[in-house]
Amino acid sequence: MDNFTYCSPTRYLFGRDTENSTGEQLAAIGCKKVLMVSGHSSARKSGLLDRVEASLRQAGIEWVELTGIDPNPTDDRVYEGIGLGHREVIDGILAVGGGSVIDTAKAIAAGIPYDGDFWDFFTGKPVEYALPIGVVLTIPAAGSEGSGNAVITKKDGLRKISIRTDYWLRPKFAILNPQLTETLPHNQIVAGIADMMAHIMERYFSPTTDCATTDRISEGLLKAIIEDAHRAAAPTFDYQARANIMWAGTLAHNGICGCGRVEDWASHGLEHEISAVYGVTHGAGLAVVFPAWLTYVSQTKPEKVAQFARRVFDVRDHDDRAAAAEGISALKAFFSSLGLPITFGELGITDPDIPQLVKRVHINKGEVFGGYFRLTQSDTFEVYKLML
Amino acid sequence: MDNFTYCSPTRYLFGRDTENSTGEQLAAIGCKKVLMVSGHSSARKSGLLDRVEASLRQAGIEWVELTGIDPNPTDDRVYEGIGLGHREVIDGILAVGGGSVIDTAKAIAAGIPYDGDFWDFFTGKPVEYALPIGVVLTIPAAGSEGSGNAVITKKDGLRKISIRTDYWLRPKFAILNPQLTETLPHNQIVAGIADMMAHIMERYFSPTTDCATTDRISEGLLKAIIEDAHRAAAPTFDYQARANIMWAGTLAHNGICGCGRVEDWASHGLEHEISAVYGVTHGAGLAVVFPAWLTYVSQTKPEKVAQFARRVFDVRDHDDRAAAAEGISALKAFFSSLGLPITFGELGITDPDIPQLVKRVHINKGEVFGGYFRLTQSDTFEVYKLML
Repeated sequence: MDNFTYCSPTRYLFGRDTENSTGEQLAAIGCKKVLMVSGHSSARKSGLLDRVEASLRQAGIEWVELTGIDPNPTDDRVYEGIGLGHREVIDGILAVGGGSVIDTAKAIAAGIPYDGDFWDFFTGKPVEYALPIGVVLTIPAAGSEGSGNAVITKKDGLRKISIRTDYWLRPKFAILNPQLTETLPHNQIVAGIADMMAHIMERYFSPTTDCATTDRISEGLLKAIIEDAHRAAAPTFDYQARANIMWAGTLAHNGICGCGRVEDWASHGLEHEISAVYGVTHGAGLAVVFPAWLTYVSQTKPEKVAQFARRVFDVRDHDDRAAAAEGISALKAFFSSLGLPITFGELGITDPDIPQLVKRVHINKGEVFGGYFRLTQSDTFEVYKLML
Repeated sequence: MDNFTYCSPTRYLFGRDTENSTGEQLAAIGCKKVLMVSGHSSARKSGLLDRVEASLRQAGIEWVELTGIDPNPTDDRVYEGIGLGHREVIDGILAVGGGSVIDTAKAIAAGIPYDGDFWDFFTGKPVEYALPIGVVLTIPAAGSEGSGNAVITKKDGLRKISIRTDYWLRPKFAILNPQLTETLPHNQIVAGIADMMAHIMERYFSPTTDCATTDRISEGLLKAIIEDAHRAAAPTFDYQARANIMWAGTLAHNGICGCGRVEDWASHGLEHEISAVYGVTHGAGLAVVFPAWLTYVSQTKPEKVAQFARRVFDVRDHDDRAAAAEGISALKAFFSSLGLPITFGELGITDPDIPQLVKRVHINKGEVFGGYFRLTQSDTFEVYKLML
C-alpha cells in the first residue's frame, strides 16, 4: 500500500425526487447565478429541466443556458461556455446530464476564472481554482459526478485528453435520482455498465501489492454491478436495480477504488482512440478492449487476473493462468449476455486500421503506458489484434 | 435502497511520515491557533507530539494543550477544553490520539462557538456549527477520524451518549500513519479489529433490502479485515497489514457502509452499558456482544445472517439457519483466535448483573431499539444471557 491523499467532498443526494432540491443545494454553496449546461432535448422533453428550473426559481437562483452538448464533448463548446459565463457574470456551474455535460461544465468552471486558455489545464497546468460545480445526473456510470476528472476532445486535431484533479474539479454536490434513468435506451444502460466496471478495473489492476482493503472494495463493487446488471438492463424499469447500479457507478470513479496504489488506465487509452477514430460509444468500446487487454497481460502476469477471476466470478481453478482464462471467458460471456460487443466486428468496425490506432495511442500516451503492465508499440498492436 | 444524503469531506493523508504535514494542513483550513487535545503520555514519549509540534511551528500555527484524555471520555474534560478554548481564543481543534481524544475534540469544537451547554447537542439539539477539527490518528478503528459521530459519558450519572452529525463534526482532515500504531499493545489492536468489524456489521444488518452495492462494500471490508487481522496483531510489526486495517477502520465508520439503508446499532447499545458498568474496553465488549446478538436474531430472522456467513466466511450450507449458525461459529472462532473474549467470563465479568444491564440499556435506548431486529426488554435479557 502506497502513501496517498484522498478527499471526496462531494455531497451526494441520492434517491427519488432529489432533483427538486437543486436550487437549495446551489444556494447552500453560495451560488446566485449559474450557467446551466445540458445535452440535447431529452432533459427538456422528460420534464426534468422544468423541475430543476422550478427549484432554482424557488431558491432565487438565476441561470443562463448552454445546451446541446454532444457525446465526446469538444473544446469549442467549452470556449462558448466560458464566453457566456464571462458575459453573464455567473458564479457557479450546474451540469444536468451525463459524463459529456459534466466534463464540459468542469472545463468551463476551471476556464472562467483563469486568464489564459483553458486548454492549458489539459496540457499539464494544474487547476488551482474553479467555480463551484453542481450536478444533476441523468446517466449512471458517468462517474464524473463524483470525480475530479474531465475528458475533452480538441475539435481540430481529434485529440481526446483526460485530466485528473485532486480537488477543484470535484462537484460540490451531485443529485442522483435513479428515476431519471428510466427513459435511457438499452444500449446506453449496458454501455454504462461496461464503463463503470472499467473504471474499477483500471484501478484494480495495479503493480502495488498488499492492498487488501482497496482490492476488496473494488471486487465488491464489481460483484454488485454484475448481480444487478440484468435487472437494470431489462425492458421493465427496475428502480432498485438502477439505484444500485447508479451508486456503484459513482463509487467506481470517485477514487475510493484507487486508494493506496498505482492504477493502470491502459484500456481507457486504447479505447479513446477507437472512439475518436470510429465514433463508437465509449462504454461499448471498453467492453471490446478490456477482455483483450486482460488476455494479453495474463500471458505474462496472470496473478492479479486470477484473483479477479476467483473473487469476482467465483472461478475455482488453482492454476493462475487457467483461472485467469476462465475469468476472462466469464467476463466476455457477461458482456455478451447484456448485448455488449466484445470484438471490433460486433462494435461495427469491420476492417479496423490497427497500425493507425497504435500510432495514435502512443502519440497520446507516450512510448510505453499502463500501470500494471507497461505496453510498448508491439504490445499495443497485439492487444488490438485480440479484439478482431 | 432508501433515499440518502452522504457527504464525507474529510481529507485523508495516509501513509508513512504524514504527521509532518499537520501544520500545513491546519494552515490550509485557515487555522492560526489551535487547541491540541491528546491522551496520556504515550504520544509524548514516542516522539509523535514533538514531530507534530515541529510541523505546527514550521507552519506558524500556535497551540495550547489539553492532555490526559481517558478512554470512555467524560463531559468534565469537554467543559475544561471549552473554557480553555474561550480563554485562549483558538480557531480550530487538533486531536492527536484515538477515539476518546477525537470525540472529546469534537464536543469541544461544537461547544466553543455555542452559547449554551454543549451537552444540549447530546440530548437532541442539532449541531449547526463547529470549529474546524484536524486529526492525527494513533489507534486504528477509532472510526471517529472520518465520521460525524461522537460519544461522551456524563461523569455524574454514567450516561454514555452517542451523537451523529451529517457534516459539522466530520474532521476537515485526518492524518493516518500506520507506523504510529507500532507501539500499541496487542489487546488494543485486537479490540480495534472487533470494533471496526462491529461498525460495519451495525450498518450491514438492516431491514432495508435490495442494497447490493452497500452490502458488497461492507462484506468486502469485513473480508479485508479478517484477511489481515492476524498479521496486524502479530508481535512483529507489519506495516502493510496495519495499513490495510487502519484504512478499513476508517471506511468502516465514515458512513459509506450505511448508504441507502436503515442501520441497526443495537449491539453498540448493549455494549455501552457493559463498558459503563464494568469499565471494559469497548472493542472487547463488542466481541462478546455481537455473536450473542447474531445468535439471538438468527433464530427468527436468519436471512441476512446467512448472507453474512456465506459471503464473509464462505459458508456453503443452503439452509439459512444452518448457514447462520456456521457463520456465527466462524466469527467466534476468529475472535478467539485473536485472543478476544467471547463471553462475560472471558471479559473478566464473573457474575454479571443482567437485570441491571437490561434496565440501563432500555433507559438509554428506549422501550424497543435496533434497526434490523427490534429488541424489547425480554429480548435484551435473552441476548445478555447468551453472553454467559
